[in-house]
Amino acid sequence: MKVYKLVLMRHGESIWNELNKFTGWHDVDLSNRGVQESLKAAKLLKKHGFYFDYAYSSVLKRSIHTLWNIIKFLDQSWIPVKKSWRLNERHYGALEGLNKDDVIQKYGNDKVQQWRRSFNIAPPKISYLEKKKLAHDSRYNNINFDILPYCESLKLTTQRVLPYWLNEIFPRFQKNTKIIIVAHGNSLRALIKYLNNINDIDILNLNIATGFPIIYEFNSEFKPIQYYYLKQ
Amino acid sequence: MKVYKLVLMRHGESIWNELNKFTGWHDVDLSNRGVQESLKAAKLLKKHGFYFDYAYSSVLKRSIHTLWNIIKFLDQSWIPVKKSWRLNERHYGALEGLNKDDVIQKYGNDKVQQWRRSFNIAPPKISYLEKKKLAHDSRYNNINFDILPYCESLKLTTQRVLPYWLNEIFPRFQKNTKIIIVAHGNSLRALIKYLNNINDIDILNLNIATGFPIIYEFNSEFKPIQYYYLKQ
Repeated sequence: MKVYKLVLMRHGESIWNELNKFTGWHDVDLSNRGVQESLKAAKLLKKHGFYFDYAYSSVLKRSIHTLWNIIKFLDQSWIPVKKSWRLNERHYGALEGLNKDDVIQKYGNDKVQQWRRSFNIAPPKISYLEKKKLAHDSRYNNINFDILPYCESLKLTTQRVLPYWLNEIFPRFQKNTKIIIVAHGNSLRALIKYLNNINDIDILNLNIATGFPIIYEFNSEFKPIQYYYLKQ
Repeated sequence: MKVYKLVLMRHGESIWNELNKFTGWHDVDLSNRGVQESLKAAKLLKKHGFYFDYAYSSVLKRSIHTLWNIIKFLDQSWIPVKKSWRLNERHYGALEGLNKDDVIQKYGNDKVQQWRRSFNIAPPKISYLEKKKLAHDSRYNNINFDILPYCESLKLTTQRVLPYWLNEIFPRFQKNTKIIIVAHGNSLRALIKYLNNINDIDILNLNIATGFPIIYEFNSEFKPIQYYYLKQ
């Protein structure tokens, strides 16, 4: 039976992962370790004979540079790359830029765990002025102001990732295009929740590992079968 | 008077520039010096306040990686990048991969100068089998076989660059989009020949320097005014 493989990849470690800060849409680059992770993933993909016709990333540089490192290593820098805000990390609202331990100290561990690990509950919003500033960023200024988030729960993240999968990526994948998506912990969770039909509770226990490509297999009718990490 | 600025950039030195080989469509990467040149250009662009909404490159990695280095330095990795074979270097036919001195020894200096510096005369063709192989490369396999070259004169290069300028880049530029094009000596010559209305003789004396961005100014009706290198 013909199996179609989609490759998903979480970006390598960023400078703020290292600093234990809430990052979200804040645009920080890969750490040295993150660069190494992206190259390790590229080597695994090469070893298993993967190559691509088309690539997607978010508009955040930790995802873009992870992708560049991978396609450069595979000698495929020339493939089309489409970048979309819809693949961005979950927007962490007013928590972005704050140290996770400081936030726990201020709001208590329960509250923070709720923000981090619930499906519906969004963290504190950014202010209207901060959202105005975000809307002014040229990578977001062609997006309807009402659609841009003040903050996002995983549910809200899912709601903006899914249309991009359904309208843009999946139709291309169905043409037997070999695709890699380099995105973020929560945008990939949103996608896997949909593909695996995971309920709102169980999804909270799904963590996406960094550094290893995820191979998502679809059957000949492009129904999801299973996914696994490429680890060696 | 409103002036619109287009930025053109020749890729930095490649490994084969270093080895004095005819390169053309052969896909070699930047040399260390080439990487440094791309970063120098990026610094100049930053110093002069340039930023971009959209970027173009060829499908050859020396142009793509030059562009990546520039937009990464400008903190604009997220802008859309479109890569087209129509911006590729001139196809040097059967000369590709050969050392320039060896070719001079074999064919004589006059002949080689004619190939390198005439407008109409193309170098020796690759074989049909070699063209079949080229057409099999996934970056070229959606191009009509008859359109793919066996070799190119500067005239033939111009004939495939121009439609891309007229149908793709220029319409976008006319919407006041800030554009950078990173391409090759001969694809940029082809473009400048058209924009400056340079005749078939004079164009042979136009050499595009590497390492310095070219700023091309257009008036409020998007007619070309002048171009200059950004050198300091």
